[in-house]
Amino acid sequence: MTHDQISLWVKVQEDKGLDVESVKTRLKNMVIETPSWGYGDSGTRFKVFKQQGVPRNPFEKLEDAAEVQRVTGVCPTVAVHIPWDKVEDYGAFKKHAQDLGLRIGAVNPNLFQDDDYALGSLCNPRAEVRQRALAHMLECVEIMNKVDSNILSLWLADGTNYPGQDDFRKRKHYLMDALTEVYQALPEDARILIEYKMFEPAFYHTDLADWGMAFNYALKLGDKAQVLVDLGHHAQGTNVAHIVSTLLDEGKLGGFHFNNRKYADDDLMVGTIDPYELFLISLELVSGEQDPATSECADNVSYMIDQSHNIEKKIPAMIRSVMNIQTAFAKALLVPREELKQAQEKGDVIRAEFIVKEAFETDVRPLLAMVRQEMGLQPDPLKAYVEGPYDKKILARGIGGQGW
Amino acid sequence: MTHDQISLWVKVQEDKGLDVESVKTRLKNMVIETPSWGYGDSGTRFKVFKQQGVPRNPFEKLEDAAEVQRVTGVCPTVAVHIPWDKVEDYGAFKKHAQDLGLRIGAVNPNLFQDDDYALGSLCNPRAEVRQRALAHMLECVEIMNKVDSNILSLWLADGTNYPGQDDFRKRKHYLMDALTEVYQALPEDARILIEYKMFEPAFYHTDLADWGMAFNYALKLGDKAQVLVDLGHHAQGTNVAHIVSTLLDEGKLGGFHFNNRKYADDDLMVGTIDPYELFLISLELVSGEQDPATSECADNVSYMIDQSHNIEKKIPAMIRSVMNIQTAFAKALLVPREELKQAQEKGDVIRAEFIVKEAFETDVRPLLAMVRQEMGLQPDPLKAYVEGPYDKKILARGIGGQGW
Amino acid sequence: MTHDQISLWVKVQEDKGLDVESVKTRLKNMVIETPSWGYGDSGTRFKVFKQQGVPRNPFEKLEDAAEVQRVTGVCPTVAVHIPWDKVEDYGAFKKHAQDLGLRIGAVNPNLFQDDDYALGSLCNPRAEVRQRALAHMLECVEIMNKVDSNILSLWLADGTNYPGQDDFRKRKHYLMDALTEVYQALPEDARILIEYKMFEPAFYHTDLADWGMAFNYALKLGDKAQVLVDLGHHAQGTNVAHIVSTLLDEGKLGGFHFNNRKYADDDLMVGTIDPYELFLISLELVSGEQDPATSECADNVSYMIDQSHNIEKKIPAMIRSVMNIQTAFAKALLVPREELKQAQEKGDVIRAEFIVKEAFETDVRPLLAMVRQEMGLQPDPLKAYVEGPYDKKILARGIGGQGW
Amino acid sequence: MTHDQISLWVKVQEDKGLDVESVKTRLKNMVIETPSWGYGDSGTRFKVFKQQGVPRNPFEKLEDAAEVQRVTGVCPTVAVHIPWDKVEDYGAFKKHAQDLGLRIGAVNPNLFQDDDYALGSLCNPRAEVRQRALAHMLECVEIMNKVDSNILSLWLADGTNYPGQDDFRKRKHYLMDALTEVYQALPEDARILIEYKMFEPAFYHTDLADWGMAFNYALKLGDKAQVLVDLGHHAQGTNVAHIVSTLLDEGKLGGFHFNNRKYADDDLMVGTIDPYELFLISLELVSGEQDPATSECADNVSYMIDQSHNIEKKIPAMIRSVMNIQTAFAKALLVPREELKQAQEKGDVIRAEFIVKEAFETDVRPLLAMVRQEMGLQPDPLKAYVEGPYDKKILARGIGGQGW
Repeated sequence: MTHDQISLWVKVQEDKGLDVESVKTRLKNMVIETPSWGYGDSGTRFKVFKQQGVPRNPFEKLEDAAEVQRVTGVCPTVAVHIPWDKVEDYGAFKKHAQDLGLRIGAVNPNLFQDDDYALGSLCNPRAEVRQRALAHMLECVEIMNKVDSNILSLWLADGTNYPGQDDFRKRKHYLMDALTEVYQALPEDARILIEYKMFEPAFYHTDLADWGMAFNYALKLGDKAQVLVDLGHHAQGTNVAHIVSTLLDEGKLGGFHFNNRKYADDDLMVGTIDPYELFLISLELVSGEQDPATSECADNVSYMIDQSHNIEKKIPAMIRSVMNIQTAFAKALLVPREELKQAQEKGDVIRAEFIVKEAFETDVRPLLAMVRQEMGLQPDPLKAYVEGPYDKKILARGIGGQGW
Repeated sequence: MTHDQISLWVKVQEDKGLDVESVKTRLKNMVIETPSWGYGDSGTRFKVFKQQGVPRNPFEKLEDAAEVQRVTGVCPTVAVHIPWDKVEDYGAFKKHAQDLGLRIGAVNPNLFQDDDYALGSLCNPRAEVRQRALAHMLECVEIMNKVDSNILSLWLADGTNYPGQDDFRKRKHYLMDALTEVYQALPEDARILIEYKMFEPAFYHTDLADWGMAFNYALKLGDKAQVLVDLGHHAQGTNVAHIVSTLLDEGKLGGFHFNNRKYADDDLMVGTIDPYELFLISLELVSGEQDPATSECADNVSYMIDQSHNIEKKIPAMIRSVMNIQTAFAKALLVPREELKQAQEKGDVIRAEFIVKEAFETDVRPLLAMVRQEMGLQPDPLKAYVEGPYDKKILARGIGGQGW
Repeated sequence: MTHDQISLWVKVQEDKGLDVESVKTRLKNMVIETPSWGYGDSGTRFKVFKQQGVPRNPFEKLEDAAEVQRVTGVCPTVAVHIPWDKVEDYGAFKKHAQDLGLRIGAVNPNLFQDDDYALGSLCNPRAEVRQRALAHMLECVEIMNKVDSNILSLWLADGTNYPGQDDFRKRKHYLMDALTEVYQALPEDARILIEYKMFEPAFYHTDLADWGMAFNYALKLGDKAQVLVDLGHHAQGTNVAHIVSTLLDEGKLGGFHFNNRKYADDDLMVGTIDPYELFLISLELVSGEQDPATSECADNVSYMIDQSHNIEKKIPAMIRSVMNIQTAFAKALLVPREELKQAQEKGDVIRAEFIVKEAFETDVRPLLAMVRQEMGLQPDPLKAYVEGPYDKKILARGIGGQGW
Repeated sequence: MTHDQISLWVKVQEDKGLDVESVKTRLKNMVIETPSWGYGDSGTRFKVFKQQGVPRNPFEKLEDAAEVQRVTGVCPTVAVHIPWDKVEDYGAFKKHAQDLGLRIGAVNPNLFQDDDYALGSLCNPRAEVRQRALAHMLECVEIMNKVDSNILSLWLADGTNYPGQDDFRKRKHYLMDALTEVYQALPEDARILIEYKMFEPAFYHTDLADWGMAFNYALKLGDKAQVLVDLGHHAQGTNVAHIVSTLLDEGKLGGFHFNNRKYADDDLMVGTIDPYELFLISLELVSGEQDPATSECADNVSYMIDQSHNIEKKIPAMIRSVMNIQTAFAKALLVPREELKQAQEKGDVIRAEFIVKEAFETDVRPLLAMVRQEMGLQPDPLKAYVEGPYDKKILARGIGGQGW
């Protein structure tokens, strides 16, 4: 990216009336959380392909996250998953993060990888299994206290595989009971984010199947409970941006798990299959921030990546996802809101669509390069990584690191 | 259906412990509302095929509905659609229904067939259009009073076709404002049922896109607002039975629009594409009736058919749909609840699935024949219609009756 | 678009090794056919919203198409639909097109809007209906001769709505028989393009349901039969680019019906819902052109737009679609093929994805502005239209023009 | 099932004109192949739940299959999967099968569980990996010779996860080359069945994505190549029965992998989610058998189960699937073909749908009980298993048997 390209970009946008400085400020303030599990081996139900250089323990995962933070500058927090990131000494773990310039973000319980959970965890027909799952949730709350996390991020894999297998309403009550207990245990300033998912690993029904179900629980629990949107968890044809705007309007949008998919919950790199959808979601987020009625909620939305890299290298995949979120968000910041509003109010469909699309068509690489340089970073994070020493250094870890 | 078949059927079921009498009573008490518009010409966006004998006015639609009631005995009410069923004298209309042994059921406003509604009705960006749509809703409330209807059934076709076309959150507030006014105008003992639909006729977003959105409005409005489930309005892969059970549990299931589809909102005859899904939904309804915690809601669920017959004859199509609902519901009544509960609690997946499936595999034609005979009807309603005089009589109406 | 922006764009791309001149040449040679029916009123099954200024006859549709050609320069041909575009004197019609600087493109028969076709046309169970449909096809071949068209474009709406309604295999044979007769009647240098569609207007099965079925007929018929891909006719999750590449490889890709959709066959403006998919399809087309093994087929692919504008203005909607196709195709031309090939062969997933995405992220508006200026056009076709006199002039036509 | 029920059933059907004897004969002659891997532990990408009593080696899998054969009488063959069923001495393996009253059915190669296959097997960009995959295929052909199998059943998991990752057409040629070599190596009387799958484990594109692609390869290869239909491998909304009828008509339907799903490739027990679809597919198979033009193909269709039981017990799950296939097929045999044909030819949609549905509504448990008794079996295979000693006996195997 040459100086000429950047200065011309600024000029063109300023001529259009864009406040480039405030756009840059917003982009510098972005925080995108990366997941510890995104650095480990993962796969499909058919195969986990083992890669060389994968972290062998939670401390090494933090080190990989720190490398992503080094080249992007917007990833200071790391989500952890218990028990995958269970350690003896959480003080030492938190300290390791701090030494790397990181903080621990959301704590994610695991309610799906125990043989007892075959028929569900918090919704299991057997009381002792439900108790065990609840105890694990409460253990995660304890860990939140130890690592200074203020988000408990719940993905509940519970559901059934066959009609008749269990009683939907009974399970709903089990879940409400458990969430109520967890909610009461939350630290004062903490939130629980409730994720939903249409199918998989349960194939007939999922106890938290859609945003409406997650929203209903969040509503009953109280202000500290919000909904988490994972981009890959919807039925085909769903308008996710519309759900995002609805949750924002209700003050119940808590966070995202960013990723991408073509068919199911493919957990591909963010923005690789449908970048326009990502941009349209960003548009709602920017709109939410700029509207006083929703800005408090919008400002607290937690941006998290949730990916499962099967065949590509983990760290560059994470960097690409961060870049793609920045790209979508930067484009969303370019939309001339007042002009758009006028076209909408006039019912000028052609013009309104055009205005939004023009922002998307704009190449924001000059803008992002400028932002990164002003943050003391190299303009191209992927290049910074590929040309840095880290990629080779971690090969010494060998094959067979942690996976899930 | 011979006497032998029926008596053997009863014996086999009683041996299994089924209370055949109470099953018969429940089946005799079913009420399935047919829609006036289901008797008129309709089609796809490509073509409305005109049929001979289609009603030429709302009074003739009632006559067709009376014929369906004559052969089925469970269809005493008829849903109307304004302005398709607009008449000069609603007193005369109500009287005509009574004379035919019918009552007027739900009143359905039309917010999609006016040129002003191109960009929406209650959510239109222009205030005068929103006012007009609201006025139409209030007109429908007036009609409810005139025809003694206690259900206002709202399908809102509003939405956008393109990203950027309009502001989701602004539209959400427009809708809340309008629904609040309508709600306050409702007669004391009446309900408003809020329908949702994923797509079509709006293609990018629908203002009432899923059950969660409809539920959220119903929650804010109050006890007289509930959700209406149209079987064809979901994304592929959605577990509709699960949504039904959730709404029942929340006391917010208001009614159904029964029909069937393979891909989109095909409005085919009920139970013709996926009869097992219909049975599984019935299972939730029966379960809701039998549970004191949900029985009040379940007992008030309005069973309505909503079909659009493009190529088949209207009246026999309606009869078939009624029969298929009865079949599914009858099978649901056969499930041995206590046995099922035990299998579920033991986590015996094979057994629980088997119990439910066995009820579905049971041929309930002997049961339904018996029920109909005891109601003074012929055992096969389709045969009763085909062999009756009505099918020929209406040919005199010619071609070019009312459509939509 | 300033001179600075354009010259900087050229410099940046040339520095990357792009042969800007050949890219410009390819873009100047694009031909995108617009459909006569895209200028008329159309709608959903619920409503056709009437617009002011819609053509009242086929001649006026040509005039609208000429306006699109005036501002875009790449739309010299117009597809016609019989009987919507049936005229007394096809010589006069062809002459009118020529006077406007246009040619008649594909001839599209209509096999779905006759009451006789309720149960199908070429696949109808009744021989006389099949004969009638065949006669219509042969009439269209006659019209091709009269208007110098060399493409017969077949969309067959036939199918069934219910299981059991008809015999799939019998219908398959009926269709093969009819297509064989049509094929034999084709003019020497003409092609028949066979379209497929998953559902609608038939809801249970469609006789030409997917590319495999269309391909199978094309294979049996011979070299003059190819497949037509309509972007809205696939199941959710289908990889259309993959189908395009398969058909190219088999020499059986005949043409496109460009449009966009979110759920079903929404017929929205091209590139408005998923512009990245459009780009990825363009990538296959460019790849096909550049490979000697497929270039003959690729060079003969007919690029046609097929839209149904319900709520937006017709002519600007068509212009936007043309622009969006140009944008996608221009970006596809930027991909450094050799670099991409190397990354693919090395299995460098991150790099290969990055290369393709970088081309998509590139703003090609400077390139297209340059191309248009060199073609003697204004750089922004939409602006050229909006600021021109045509938009106002046609208002004199009033409301109630031709629709379908 | 009492004698009364059975004899009344026969009487009722004979009164309708059904040739009960020939139906029984057809049912007795059914052959449903069970898969060795269906007896082992399996799961989702999130978890394989370990069960007690799972086979520890291929020989024990045969023993479980023999138990299914013992209670059903229609499962004399077992599909094997290499290398999961790799053994030192295939002679001994074949002998073990024979001693158990079984034969080895289809041989299934594994082209997805080797670290080398991360980017594909037969379509991998690297020649040495393609060679290795081809060698594995040829090894499987060798094994076919050793175990007297005459079906090579190819599921190719190859595909890409990201746009740009690889070259679709190049991969298509790699695949054609490999299949050609395999085809030439096939034993004289053997067939290769080519499976297709829409997505998973590859998420962006699958090299064999749909029936059209599999059909195209089968067509080029020759008569010994046919298509295999796995019920879970289609996009939502696909009419699988129509694909089955198309392949039958072309003589290219080779076999099935029966299972069921709600959303993706869930591999649930056959007939548990959509039993009507299974029946409609059976209808095409029966129709194919009864039509001289297609009977040769239909008679050679291989009926195989492919399931992945995550939470339910393996052997009873397999028995249930066998029963559900029998049920669907038995109902399909009841359809009065001539009557149906007449209704279809008259265009009597209501009647044609009714006829097909009536067969489905018929309870065929008396018929199947009678068939089983005449085969020397107990009337209820599930009961026979549950009450037999095998279920307890295998517990001695402990936990941790073979999985995949």
